Amino acid sequence: MTGKDLSEHPISSEEVYAGGFFRVHRDRVRLPDGKETVREYVRHPGAVAIVALHEDGRVLLERQYRYPLARDFIEIPAGKLEAGEPHERTARRELLEETGYAARDWTRIGVMHTAIGYSDEGIELWLARGLDKREQALDEGEFLEVLELPFADALAMVRDGRITDAKTVAALLWVRAFGT
Amino acid sequence: MTGKDLSEHPISSEEVYAGGFFRVHRDRVRLPDGKETVREYVRHPGAVAIVALHEDGRVLLERQYRYPLARDFIEIPAGKLEAGEPHERTARRELLEETGYAARDWTRIGVMHTAIGYSDEGIELWLARGLDKREQALDEGEFLEVLELPFADALAMVRDGRITDAKTVAALLWVRAFGT
Repeated sequence: MTGKDLSEHPISSEEVYAGGFFRVHRDRVRLPDGKETVREYVRHPGAVAIVALHEDGRVLLERQYRYPLARDFIEIPAGKLEAGEPHERTARRELLEETGYAARDWTRIGVMHTAIGYSDEGIELWLARGLDKREQALDEGEFLEVLELPFADALAMVRDGRITDAKTVAALLWVRAFGT
Repeated sequence: MTGKDLSEHPISSEEVYAGGFFRVHRDRVRLPDGKETVREYVRHPGAVAIVALHEDGRVLLERQYRYPLARDFIEIPAGKLEAGEPHERTARRELLEETGYAARDWTRIGVMHTAIGYSDEGIELWLARGLDKREQALDEGEFLEVLELPFADALAMVRDGRITDAKTVAALLWVRAFGT
């Protein structure tokens, strides 16, 4: 990266909340001009998300209630990383558990950072093809409904605001723009 | 929304961290099967982000150090909502402060939810055209470098992973897919 150095340097770091799957830190930080400020942020284990396509172009989506926003969302299958588990393995596991599909062909699309102002979360995006139906096996406390929609219908839902989940918007539009 | 009711209902809510711009809640929740669980999430004021286009197709981007991930990111101009301030006014203010540009034409693209598993943040996406150069006026503690790049170059950076910020990926690909 060219241009001036914009780096901020930690002076001290405090864990102000340790939750079940994320932690919150509050750091004193040295700014580029030498002054001090405070940066608060979430430490997240990271996640995977999957654009899973049938041969006929249908895409696997899920309807899921998202408590922080108190409503249902339509989203692509996704799940948090487990410590030490390779991303592709997490992606295979989550797709199978949530949708009941195994996929033969896996291609990494890239990584997406969801909330760079206050979280270190990265979501690894994968494209899955060659789908075979197996058995859905939801985690305890996980409730969702699988949808299998033509890709054009999913794009229409992005366009008209029925799909607003960032990972889903980015991943579907990525596949639309750059192909499979 | 059709299909079975997936709603989760709050039993009790506790604010476990009150920070400078976000708060963290930890709620006891009733699941659809009647069991209880805990949901932790960030309460965020919301934000705006702007795809600002020159007549010749160049787009305004910013290079900014993002402390949670300890590196620079290339992103579209954005800022947090102020209480009671209309979204479009926030968008106009942030574009001017961060880039020094005023825009005559404003079109709302839609809303994007960045981290629906653990945050209620929504980012209102706006398209700004008819740019006039004024004076940049960064906030205290804000350091960034403005870039003005051909739209195709920005898309190439999405494709090859130089741009991974979710709001930026989603907004640029939206404009690519559905036009201006």
